[in-house]
Amino acid sequence: MPSYKAPVRDGLFILHEVLQIERHAALPGFADLTSDTLAAVLEEGGRFAEEVIQPLNRQGDMQGCTRHADGRVTTPDGFKEAYAQFVAGGWGGLAGDPAFGGQGLPHVVATAFEEYMIAANMAFTMYPMLTQGAIAAIRAVATPAQQRKFIPKMMNGTWTGTMNLTEPHCGTDLGLLRTRAEPEPDGTYRITGTKIFISSGDHDLSENIIHLVLAKLPDAPDNVKGISLFIVPKLLVDDDGNLGARNAVTCGRIEEKMGIHGNATCVMNYEGATGYLIGERDKGLRAMFIMMNAARLGVGVQGLAQSEVSYQNAATYARERLQGRALSGPQNPAGKADPIIVHPDVRRMLMNARAFNEGARALSLWAALRVDLAENAATPEERQAAEDEIGLLTPVIKGYFTDKGYENATNAQQCFGGHGYVREWGMEQFVRDARIALIYEGTNGIQALDLVGRKLPAHGGRALRTWLQTVGTSAAACVADEATRFVGEPLQRALDDLQGATGWLMRNALTKPDNAAAGSMAYLHLMGLVALGHQWALMARAASAALANGAADADFYTHKLAVARYYFSHLICETAVHRARVEAGAAPMMALPAEAF
Amino acid sequence: MPSYKAPVRDGLFILHEVLQIERHAALPGFADLTSDTLAAVLEEGGRFAEEVIQPLNRQGDMQGCTRHADGRVTTPDGFKEAYAQFVAGGWGGLAGDPAFGGQGLPHVVATAFEEYMIAANMAFTMYPMLTQGAIAAIRAVATPAQQRKFIPKMMNGTWTGTMNLTEPHCGTDLGLLRTRAEPEPDGTYRITGTKIFISSGDHDLSENIIHLVLAKLPDAPDNVKGISLFIVPKLLVDDDGNLGARNAVTCGRIEEKMGIHGNATCVMNYEGATGYLIGERDKGLRAMFIMMNAARLGVGVQGLAQSEVSYQNAATYARERLQGRALSGPQNPAGKADPIIVHPDVRRMLMNARAFNEGARALSLWAALRVDLAENAATPEERQAAEDEIGLLTPVIKGYFTDKGYENATNAQQCFGGHGYVREWGMEQFVRDARIALIYEGTNGIQALDLVGRKLPAHGGRALRTWLQTVGTSAAACVADEATRFVGEPLQRALDDLQGATGWLMRNALTKPDNAAAGSMAYLHLMGLVALGHQWALMARAASAALANGAADADFYTHKLAVARYYFSHLICETAVHRARVEAGAAPMMALPAEAF
Repeated sequence: MPSYKAPVRDGLFILHEVLQIERHAALPGFADLTSDTLAAVLEEGGRFAEEVIQPLNRQGDMQGCTRHADGRVTTPDGFKEAYAQFVAGGWGGLAGDPAFGGQGLPHVVATAFEEYMIAANMAFTMYPMLTQGAIAAIRAVATPAQQRKFIPKMMNGTWTGTMNLTEPHCGTDLGLLRTRAEPEPDGTYRITGTKIFISSGDHDLSENIIHLVLAKLPDAPDNVKGISLFIVPKLLVDDDGNLGARNAVTCGRIEEKMGIHGNATCVMNYEGATGYLIGERDKGLRAMFIMMNAARLGVGVQGLAQSEVSYQNAATYARERLQGRALSGPQNPAGKADPIIVHPDVRRMLMNARAFNEGARALSLWAALRVDLAENAATPEERQAAEDEIGLLTPVIKGYFTDKGYENATNAQQCFGGHGYVREWGMEQFVRDARIALIYEGTNGIQALDLVGRKLPAHGGRALRTWLQTVGTSAAACVADEATRFVGEPLQRALDDLQGATGWLMRNALTKPDNAAAGSMAYLHLMGLVALGHQWALMARAASAALANGAADADFYTHKLAVARYYFSHLICETAVHRARVEAGAAPMMALPAEAF
Repeated sequence: MPSYKAPVRDGLFILHEVLQIERHAALPGFADLTSDTLAAVLEEGGRFAEEVIQPLNRQGDMQGCTRHADGRVTTPDGFKEAYAQFVAGGWGGLAGDPAFGGQGLPHVVATAFEEYMIAANMAFTMYPMLTQGAIAAIRAVATPAQQRKFIPKMMNGTWTGTMNLTEPHCGTDLGLLRTRAEPEPDGTYRITGTKIFISSGDHDLSENIIHLVLAKLPDAPDNVKGISLFIVPKLLVDDDGNLGARNAVTCGRIEEKMGIHGNATCVMNYEGATGYLIGERDKGLRAMFIMMNAARLGVGVQGLAQSEVSYQNAATYARERLQGRALSGPQNPAGKADPIIVHPDVRRMLMNARAFNEGARALSLWAALRVDLAENAATPEERQAAEDEIGLLTPVIKGYFTDKGYENATNAQQCFGGHGYVREWGMEQFVRDARIALIYEGTNGIQALDLVGRKLPAHGGRALRTWLQTVGTSAAACVADEATRFVGEPLQRALDDLQGATGWLMRNALTKPDNAAAGSMAYLHLMGLVALGHQWALMARAASAALANGAADADFYTHKLAVARYYFSHLICETAVHRARVEAGAAPMMALPAEAF
């Protein structure tokens, strides 16, 4: 059976020593966050994930969700009880606005906890994650009355939420959607259509499910400019918040899929269901993107979390499994064989994952802190700067983290040999679960396009320019210090590659947009490597400072520097090939006629 | 439902125009192989795979194999009938020795057919593939009488074969195995032990199953030098070949696994089963390696085949799925959207797969021709040269092809977006099936070690030296010709990287073997890229010559050159990063103490 230990020590290092969150004590939620409180929250959250949620992960995969003959959907054994504990513990509202009953902690803390939950049980955690996304959309565009009616019960978890975008013939291209919304005299709408791939679409965890649904009004333009957003509750809610009749929305089928079997991925049939318009008519996509952008950061964390939990299990196995001898001579001479962790190729797979996990964790918390700053920093300039950074890094975090998460889960499975391929050890589940994160909330190809097509050119390239300066400053600081020069020099070379690739795009993609799209995935990976390199630079300086100051826990910092060294000796060198691919352009990629495929 | 079309045209191009098999007419089996016969065999084989085997692939995955209460194992619906057709068609003995009832065709033809079978249904094809491996081992070491007794019925498919190596506590390190073989007065042995992960271990396809089992004699050294190889038939066979009593070998369980559900992966319990020693006692590993080396080439072809079939389905989907518009302007203005094949990032995934598939197909057939030459070439020098080449390239074909096969199957699934993640379209099955090929017959890490630890240094580096010269000559020929210079120059740079990495290993790994092991996977991929580059050089020259000669099918050759251009503009540049990883050495990889993981 797989196990999981929440990496609380690593999180505290990042929060205190790298991000130095104490500097942000003026922000709401940060002031009361003493070092002890923070440690207590993460430790309690870690224990909840380890002890309550993780033990249900295998069972959830094997049993899956069930749609009964009467249309009811039930989750795997134990999910309902665990969800009740989640609600009772107030975990859903950790970073929620106290005005709606939330605990008002910073996003950066909630994100640390979110990683633990996903690592423990990704399918389970999708139920509350989608609720968070739905809350974000309602907060962004709904009226105050609508917010008061729906948000508090969603925030405390009594109700859950979903996003309904995809239809059988359209996913990425929402302009094609066919779901209709007919206005009724009472101001509501009758929603009719079929939505597919709806995560958490129906289940038995919560009293009610608040569906956010994209649909078109009869007289709307038949393209992306004619899409409106509706709240469609599973059970109707009266003005006092009491549950009423069943709405005309049903789960038609649970999809058979590769993984995340514990989450009910539903075909949802809307048959004249009552819906409430939120935000302006025909402007629904904007609200959905608010929801989606928050969700994309969460999906990035899914990549990290699956990499972390599969790494932990592979590391344990590699320390325990006896097979063969070290090439440099027996390491376990009393035994009949050495543990396989003595073999460099096993180390390679573990170190690849570890260098990613620690770098990605730092970047995910760095981004979450920007979310706090974008909402609450003192000046508009600071808020805008944070917004720029989040916007730029969101597609990188979603795309790069999930690509690497899948790769690392695959490598962790590989450490088990044949035992990784059979179900018994649970490793193949991590691979199957991790796989979805490259697809949903916009495929990674869409993330790459968003990066090069929208985020780079926005405001004349302001966000990238500022971020490149930030990274360059960190690299220079590392070069200036003997103890971190091994970080600074390769980071500068990687930054050169990123700047070179950016320059090439500026010169070659304006008139030929295919050149941007052809290099977009390579560019995303190049930027991911530099972004993690930046975090490693910050971590290396913090670790080096701690050692210079005689920190008690010297092993932690020495190991941190050792992993940094591996990142800069073995991983970041990949930037050169991504740059070469960007600069190779679209022509060879597009040369064949479509019929030749 | 996924579909499949055997790439016969491409195979004929490789056989006639690249390998020019007509030059080998003096070899047995080649003389009668007119161009028409060859085309007919491949076309008929392709049809058999497409029409008989492929339609069972999804069903086989969904239904899996069943172990009944009485211990019988049955395969998915339709497998038994399809296998009977396979036997009736004589497909199992395609390249078999006519002395044992085989058809005596060259291996190079059988390998082309093997790709079709695996692409159509990997789980099904493992039954006959393992039989081929077992035949190879019996031929290599068994007595003439044993060969006459077992081989003919295995070759015609009436009986099937298995390999029994792995035990619960040992896979890679066979020295640890515990299965015992007690000599009986009649010269047979009583075999007792548990073997796991036995592919095709029990089933209802054939009259009998011939298990090849590694076990230790009571007085044997307790390490790899004390392992003997036994034939243990499921049903005992008398001297006239009649089937007798059930032997004491049973399937204790079918493993629940990630994929290849149509193949029964069994725990096999040997409880004093009657076994027949083949080959010398304590030398069983040598025979098993003969079997394994042939099998490794076959597993490499599994990587290619899964890449090909998933590519074909992704290409079809990309041509048909309408979503979004081309960045360069609508390509399907009459429709509401363009087919997604207009998007460069979709092309990237398709072109990556295609450039691999065509290069890997050429290399797999090139290697199969070497198997023919190693067996039958006129002079000992030619046979040795072919043997050298196979030995060198076997770990590359197994490791590189299966890594890329999994990657390409994952990308093909990605082209489908959410539809790739649900079972309905069959794409996720290709990923799950392809995954095993990185693990069995020696994990890819073991392949990499075999390459740098055994194959490179063998005979003072003779095999590599000769092969590098061969590749260098091809590259130079491409450079000399204006039409193929775009191939020759990047191939020379890639070759420089390979030679540089090799030189580094020679200077740094002799005294520190961890340096070889730490870079072994990067070296394997570097060599894989160069090996495919070599095949692309041969293909580009052939295609360019055909066009210069006014070949009728000009589109085929023009497209071949377009894919070559993509390989050399976008893919082979990766050699630089693999070289950098080799040269980064073991120290950063091994720096952490084992307890720190």
